[in-house]
Amino acid sequence: MLGAQGRAVHQCDRGWAPVFLDREQSISLMSVGFLLEKPDEAVVWRGPKKNALIKQFVSDVAWGELDYLVVDTPPGTSDEHMATIEALRPYQPLGALVVTTPQAVSVGDVRRELTFCRKTGLRVMGIVENMSGFTCPHCAECTSVFSRGGGEELAQLAGVPFLGSVPLDPALMRTLEEGHHFIQESPGSPAFAALTSIAQKILDATPACLP
Amino acid sequence: MLGAQGRAVHQCDRGWAPVFLDREQSISLMSVGFLLEKPDEAVVWRGPKKNALIKQFVSDVAWGELDYLVVDTPPGTSDEHMATIEALRPYQPLGALVVTTPQAVSVGDVRRELTFCRKTGLRVMGIVENMSGFTCPHCAECTSVFSRGGGEELAQLAGVPFLGSVPLDPALMRTLEEGHHFIQESPGSPAFAALTSIAQKILDATPACLP
Repeated sequence: MLGAQGRAVHQCDRGWAPVFLDREQSISLMSVGFLLEKPDEAVVWRGPKKNALIKQFVSDVAWGELDYLVVDTPPGTSDEHMATIEALRPYQPLGALVVTTPQAVSVGDVRRELTFCRKTGLRVMGIVENMSGFTCPHCAECTSVFSRGGGEELAQLAGVPFLGSVPLDPALMRTLEEGHHFIQESPGSPAFAALTSIAQKILDATPACLP
Repeated sequence: MLGAQGRAVHQCDRGWAPVFLDREQSISLMSVGFLLEKPDEAVVWRGPKKNALIKQFVSDVAWGELDYLVVDTPPGTSDEHMATIEALRPYQPLGALVVTTPQAVSVGDVRRELTFCRKTGLRVMGIVENMSGFTCPHCAECTSVFSRGGGEELAQLAGVPFLGSVPLDPALMRTLEEGHHFIQESPGSPAFAALTSIAQKILDATPACLP
């Protein structure tokens, strides 16, 4: 999605050098995908090995000075999530950004994620509803493909901020597929406005750490 | 999705009695969800504990005579998948039914699943493409919300059968949300035809085990 497939991680004197997306080095990445010899290789790893790598991704990568470190986890409440929380605890993470789709079966999973955050002492920064309705590009009518409103209801129920809904947007999907720059190419698309508003709410709610 | 939330598992003399969906006991279920005291409880379990439960779900449940045992796993190639394959190996499973969405980022994950199946000696019965296009209920125009054709291309590339595409279908979503019976209520919907055809292909390709 970020156009970094096939890039490699190099060793530098302070550890692994992350993959930089742009010349200004404003976004740096680390992923197990960069460490595989073949892109189709399956990471058939049990919990302890995954946990060790997650710790290394925090401690052994030469991240340099970061404004934000974003960890994108799979859904669930499993080894990856526990290892991430443990590895980041000394750095006092701002919290978890919890993403759901609107339908009941997804909201049910996310309720368990919220319980997990509470149990592990991780603040919930807010809930985002993804895949929230689809506006037909042919007739401009909007359909709730996956139901609607589940994210907002859950946020109210759990007493955490609701940060917004991101609609299904073929323009976003297409730029991700083709490795193009969504912000430059589709500033008028429905998902753009939604994502910008959510990002602004997160920035407003987090301590000023920018110079 | 199956309307079994809140049902409980009971002990019988041959082990755990599964949850039956209908009076004829034609579909029986087992899920960790049935074992939790509260539905919001997070299953914060590391690999070894999950592996042990998966083994118990095979050996300690009074399944009786089954025509088919379907194990619905999360995406990935992790503890759950290895434990399932190990627990079922003595029963010579028919194989894996691999589901992808059409976009490149999902197909990439599924390529790794195929490698995993090859490594572990599990036959791939075929690939299904889900969320494959959306027909607007207002104007009947079809939009490829998540790109299209990725599943079929992958099947050709990997030399495994392509079993079909299931479109995004608000009728399917609504019946699942409301706990209704999709087969009875929406026999004319686009997803119904697709799912019926895929099920028939799987039945045709599996040995006759029905009486």
